[in-house]
Amino acid sequence: MPYIHIRVTDEGVTNAQKQSLIKGTTQLMVDVLGKSPETTFVVIDEVSTDNWGIGFEQVTAIRQRQT
Amino acid sequence: MPYIHIRVTDEGVTNAQKQSLIKGTTQLMVDVLGKSPETTFVVIDEVSTDNWGIGFEQVTAIRQRQT
Amino acid sequence: MPYIHIRVTDEGVTNAQKQSLIKGTTQLMVDVLGKSPETTFVVIDEVSTDNWGIGFEQVTAIRQRQT
Amino acid sequence: MPYIHIRVTDEGVTNAQKQSLIKGTTQLMVDVLGKSPETTFVVIDEVSTDNWGIGFEQVTAIRQRQT
Amino acid sequence: MPYIHIRVTDEGVTNAQKQSLIKGTTQLMVDVLGKSPETTFVVIDEVSTDNWGIGFEQVTAIRQRQT
Amino acid sequence: MPYIHIRVTDEGVTNAQKQSLIKGTTQLMVDVLGKSPETTFVVIDEVSTDNWGIGFEQVTAIRQRQT
Repeated sequence: MPYIHIRVTDEGVTNAQKQSLIKGTTQLMVDVLGKSPETTFVVIDEVSTDNWGIGFEQVTAIRQRQT
Repeated sequence: MPYIHIRVTDEGVTNAQKQSLIKGTTQLMVDVLGKSPETTFVVIDEVSTDNWGIGFEQVTAIRQRQT
Repeated sequence: MPYIHIRVTDEGVTNAQKQSLIKGTTQLMVDVLGKSPETTFVVIDEVSTDNWGIGFEQVTAIRQRQT
Repeated sequence: MPYIHIRVTDEGVTNAQKQSLIKGTTQLMVDVLGKSPETTFVVIDEVSTDNWGIGFEQVTAIRQRQT
Repeated sequence: MPYIHIRVTDEGVTNAQKQSLIKGTTQLMVDVLGKSPETTFVVIDEVSTDNWGIGFEQVTAIRQRQT
Repeated sequence: MPYIHIRVTDEGVTNAQKQSLIKGTTQLMVDVLGKSPETTFVVIDEVSTDNWGIGFEQVTAIRQRQT
């Protein structure tokens, strides 16, 4: 009965990537813990880079420097 | 001082349904635990069906098969 | 496919109360949103009163004044 | 390695306010716990007033009465 | 900068299993999203079977029937 | 009506530190967003270093190398 919450910045995660994240984490629950896929939930939460901070800064600012 | 977080798929939850969820869960805290409604928070989080996986699949795909 | 997270202070929640919270919130998902109980998760999180703050204070301090 | 999640109602939080929340909570982790800012995450979650309940009511209704 | 929260029932998850979950989900973030491991957090939350409900029931009761 | 969730590793956070975290984050909500302390919740979650991963590793392993 696992519940996996994946929180990432909202920077163009594609539908194929979402499917890969869901498949991969569910498979991990099966392989590592012997859990049943039918009761494994995966929720992906895409957060605006303005709303995510690290090292005192918004990710938006970090990304601008990286460009 | 309870905090209740309700996470559901974003499939047309109406305002009346949100009110019912808020009233119902708050009442439950009062009835079962004797909590005070004034300090009972209920937060509803509506998640895109692309971002919710169960049984290796996006809910979007499950819904398409159900139609 | 709802996921309900109930966070309360750890002040002697009994097993019967936990069952009532699980039943009550699951029933609410069925009644209000037409969800299936088989894919409705309820997780109860009991938090030490030292670790919960409201109005600048630990709940521990609030409880001591209430006694 | 702290992770701070700030959930507030979505009522016009400005970018400057987000920066202040990120800076302030990160500084608190440094000052109080001696944590490293480089591994301190702050995530701000803005919730619609329709989706936040307190005292049996949506915040939307509370705000209307306050006006 | 992903943050992954894994919530499972507290049924004897070993230290080796925890390491596998951390490695596996971090690798997934690298492979699927091109994220940096240094800023990928994985948090595992073990929940008592009394505190997890599914289908109106505590997992404790489900486990007892399965034995 | 803010809700702040602080997740840190469980490495001897003292009661005085918890009070400082609660006071500091609540004050931030007042100063930055004009929120009311009476409806500001702060919850501190202490996570075992075995259950927190960063850079493919448990924090436990990182701490052992740091010693």
